[in-house]
Amino acid sequence: MNKVNIAGIGQTPVSESWDKSLKELAGDAGLIAMDDAGIGYPDALFVGNMMAITANRQAQLATLIADWLGFHHKPAISIETACSSGSAAFRMALMAIASGELESALVIGAEKMTDSPGDEITSSLATAADAELEADFGLSFVGLNALLMRRYMYEYGWEHADFSNFSINAHANAVHNPYARFQEPITKESFIKSAMISDPINLMDASPVSDGAAAIVLSAHPISNGRKSVSVIASSAMTDTLSLQNRKVGTRLAAAETSTKAAYAQAGLSPSDIGLFEYHDAFSIMAALSLEAAGFCEPGQGPTLAIDGKIKFDSDIPVATMGGLKARGHPVGATGIYQLVEATLQLRGLAGATQVLRPKYAMTQNIGGSGSNIITHILQAE
Amino acid sequence: MNKVNIAGIGQTPVSESWDKSLKELAGDAGLIAMDDAGIGYPDALFVGNMMAITANRQAQLATLIADWLGFHHKPAISIETACSSGSAAFRMALMAIASGELESALVIGAEKMTDSPGDEITSSLATAADAELEADFGLSFVGLNALLMRRYMYEYGWEHADFSNFSINAHANAVHNPYARFQEPITKESFIKSAMISDPINLMDASPVSDGAAAIVLSAHPISNGRKSVSVIASSAMTDTLSLQNRKVGTRLAAAETSTKAAYAQAGLSPSDIGLFEYHDAFSIMAALSLEAAGFCEPGQGPTLAIDGKIKFDSDIPVATMGGLKARGHPVGATGIYQLVEATLQLRGLAGATQVLRPKYAMTQNIGGSGSNIITHILQAE
Repeated sequence: MNKVNIAGIGQTPVSESWDKSLKELAGDAGLIAMDDAGIGYPDALFVGNMMAITANRQAQLATLIADWLGFHHKPAISIETACSSGSAAFRMALMAIASGELESALVIGAEKMTDSPGDEITSSLATAADAELEADFGLSFVGLNALLMRRYMYEYGWEHADFSNFSINAHANAVHNPYARFQEPITKESFIKSAMISDPINLMDASPVSDGAAAIVLSAHPISNGRKSVSVIASSAMTDTLSLQNRKVGTRLAAAETSTKAAYAQAGLSPSDIGLFEYHDAFSIMAALSLEAAGFCEPGQGPTLAIDGKIKFDSDIPVATMGGLKARGHPVGATGIYQLVEATLQLRGLAGATQVLRPKYAMTQNIGGSGSNIITHILQAE
Repeated sequence: MNKVNIAGIGQTPVSESWDKSLKELAGDAGLIAMDDAGIGYPDALFVGNMMAITANRQAQLATLIADWLGFHHKPAISIETACSSGSAAFRMALMAIASGELESALVIGAEKMTDSPGDEITSSLATAADAELEADFGLSFVGLNALLMRRYMYEYGWEHADFSNFSINAHANAVHNPYARFQEPITKESFIKSAMISDPINLMDASPVSDGAAAIVLSAHPISNGRKSVSVIASSAMTDTLSLQNRKVGTRLAAAETSTKAAYAQAGLSPSDIGLFEYHDAFSIMAALSLEAAGFCEPGQGPTLAIDGKIKFDSDIPVATMGGLKARGHPVGATGIYQLVEATLQLRGLAGATQVLRPKYAMTQNIGGSGSNIITHILQAE
């Protein structure tokens, strides 16, 4: 596949947004990215979103955003793979450009979750699970992750408190990110004492329901605008069984293993080359499993990296460098694009207080469902 | 864009399906297409679907179908542009193959609408309209089309009965299609006397809420299996304002005009070269507008073609050759793939009693919303 370049990035603050609608959030992010790229209207619009049809009563969201942004008579499509919808839209845009059909594209990830009452959003999120085998029996999405975390703790002998450093690190980084939902640090004590949601997952293990939009302009041509150019050197998507119960090994993200392996092969890199890893820490158990699947440690050893401080922004394997899903927030369809925007800021050397030390290769990984649709990208600074 | 080939096709009968779930319908269509292609598992799965998250409580439908079909650790994504979701998924698969990222892909369009009570499915369909400007004020989707039809009748002086031949033709062709929802003819009298839905649209102007799935295997390489090879020589997507009220000319499908114009240019063809046109006759007004937008007649003259018999399968501009949305049925996210499957059957010369006379070039056009997201393809028999 021909190399595709990141020409512009944009994001809105992740928040509980009362003054902007979904299309306005998406439009704001899109306009910022278009301004950052400076190439006018891209050839097409790709939108990653999971639940506009339930949470906002709106299908064909991409058409609406194209209309709102003034993309007159240009193609616009919506792409959905649950919580990895943002990265799925990005990947489709990459292929459309690599095919020669488009020279440029705007990719927006957008989600507005807080207009719905809590029980409705919990129901919408549960559609990411297998309806017939999981959700219809009352398993919520956090419930599924709780089963996974309990089994993992049992198999490898970890205590709940051993996961605290994932969330502490995420919040410490988010302090410096003006776009993060929670710009406050947390302590081990506040982690341990926070409210139980679905045993063993408590409030501080879980990413918050949020509103937000992030956007990227992709181009067939390198565009730097006086900054370091950033390009996409690997894109890999893999699926696993939708239901957790059908997995051979429930406590490993097999599709993340094959997806990262394929991405490393495409880029000609190994885990030690990666200068930052924007992972999908929707729950702290997912943080641990992602580090393991990406080859940064052996299965069962994810928490060790966090406890040893290896995941800090200025250490070996920087993760969640601007807060991650836990503290930046997790507006589901937008998350993949937030990850890619943050990785681009790091590779441009413009990440501020949490700038990583080796801004050459960044890997992002977005997870749909409980490990069922994994999309991995590797970006490179020129 | 490199040429992409149709290697296999499959479809399930359009019906009110009580014995198969959405994933089973989709899986059945997918397996038939894979069997028809005979190349084993394609490299990835693309699914066009509009409303699984509301009608079937299932997000990431593509992941579920990949799981069900045994696509182990392969990419799967869902694509949504309301009623043109099927063609949008097909177009994404084309570009993925043309980019070199994939050698082959399975594209499935699937929708199961009849499990929901009528008021719920009407609400789900209304999400294809602009929530803030249309649906939230109580405009249903058929209501929007009724406004459009009334205005068109007023501007051009047509009576309601003048639209009857669109539906009569569709039903006459569906008699010979074992996959059609309604395999019975209708008369002008039954058209006129049928129940009013939203004045002036009556039951015989409208396509039926349905269940169904259709599938296509695409390949970078020509695959004939002893039949005529069929390839895709044009793919064009265009958007218009989502709300009807914001259009410059409400009674023309401007995005369909630009989309067909672009498709003709890509293929190096003009309207007179087209041997059949599988159009989007969700309502009879859409049939008229589609013929006009595609350049087969002047604005306001669509009904003339139907009255003069020009749209019959053995006449100048064959449309709805296997029943169209009106009589084959309109399982929304599946419709675009049904159109492409039917066009392929015609180009292979295997369309049976309604075989067209010039099976060289076929055009399909899928419409999302009230003309807001238009996707046009031209296929060629080698």
